Amino acid sequence: MPHIELPAQVPGIRSLVLFRPDTGKHLYEWAQVLLRGGDSPLSEAERELIAAFVSHRNACTFCMSSHAAAARYLYRDAAQTVDIVLDDYLNAPISDKIKTLLTIAGKVQADARSVSEEDVAEARAQGAGDRDIHDTVLIAATFCMFNRYVDGLATITPPAEDLDTWAVMGERMATVGYVPPK
Amino acid sequence: MPHIELPAQVPGIRSLVLFRPDTGKHLYEWAQVLLRGGDSPLSEAERELIAAFVSHRNACTFCMSSHAAAARYLYRDAAQTVDIVLDDYLNAPISDKIKTLLTIAGKVQADARSVSEEDVAEARAQGAGDRDIHDTVLIAATFCMFNRYVDGLATITPPAEDLDTWAVMGERMATVGYVPPK
Repeated sequence: MPHIELPAQVPGIRSLVLFRPDTGKHLYEWAQVLLRGGDSPLSEAERELIAAFVSHRNACTFCMSSHAAAARYLYRDAAQTVDIVLDDYLNAPISDKIKTLLTIAGKVQADARSVSEEDVAEARAQGAGDRDIHDTVLIAATFCMFNRYVDGLATITPPAEDLDTWAVMGERMATVGYVPPK
Repeated sequence: MPHIELPAQVPGIRSLVLFRPDTGKHLYEWAQVLLRGGDSPLSEAERELIAAFVSHRNACTFCMSSHAAAARYLYRDAAQTVDIVLDDYLNAPISDKIKTLLTIAGKVQADARSVSEEDVAEARAQGAGDRDIHDTVLIAATFCMFNRYVDGLATITPPAEDLDTWAVMGERMATVGYVPPK
């Protein structure tokens, strides 16, 4: 049960946006520019993958399930790449560049001061530039916010196993983007 | 040295906003609505105190020093309340309500899922309402983002001991608010 009185039966971040629309509006605009903004060298699928990866590390079921579903949709993921990444990213069928960026994202989640010059050099050796590194750190940091906001107030979360529910949410996130609920 | 090429001699978040202005604009607007928005039951001083407290727990020197300076200015803090809070908030000369909210903020910083019904009940017993609890969680979550963004890219940070530098920054944050650098 949520720690504060939220709209009944509205899950996760959506209930919080309805509770305080003035901050909610900014959070949706933020997600849109960060995850859909046109000029990132990271694809929308890669950005959603980083969001799901960090949310998984934070054990935030709502954000992990919804962003993993968006990533599955965007990867047209018949091969279950997203699920393999969440389980064991270093042995997943993804590029070496994105593996090095996920390593950085994981360090940002745990303790951002632990991102080392070696981590950054390895990402650069795999073709990452300043914007790849910057956007990875910012997405990872941002989901450390969203995860805590959603779980710190104990918002309603459908079961992680209910993949059909998450698939609907993920498709909407992938196609419509981040538009505040009304 | 920063992990990416940032404007020389510009510290912390300001260098990152200059690096990517489209996201930077949103982050400044976000800080403004969250820390200065008019209808929070938490005073601006209390909101800055929560920001400094969480940044201290995350060992983020830039955010801790700057928001502690803003809180000192807003508290007209001759009694060093802010510094006592950072050192030992349960024995600081602040209200029992803000102590219970700082306990919640600390749990959000460490693991947001650990915020318990008892924590929330204790805050309510000291007069906190839904908006106090909500805004506390959201500010704590937000600084888990800012702290990671600033430290994950190893931005330039003046020494924590250079209190005159931070005091200038804190006064500007307290009086001008959050306006992006140009």
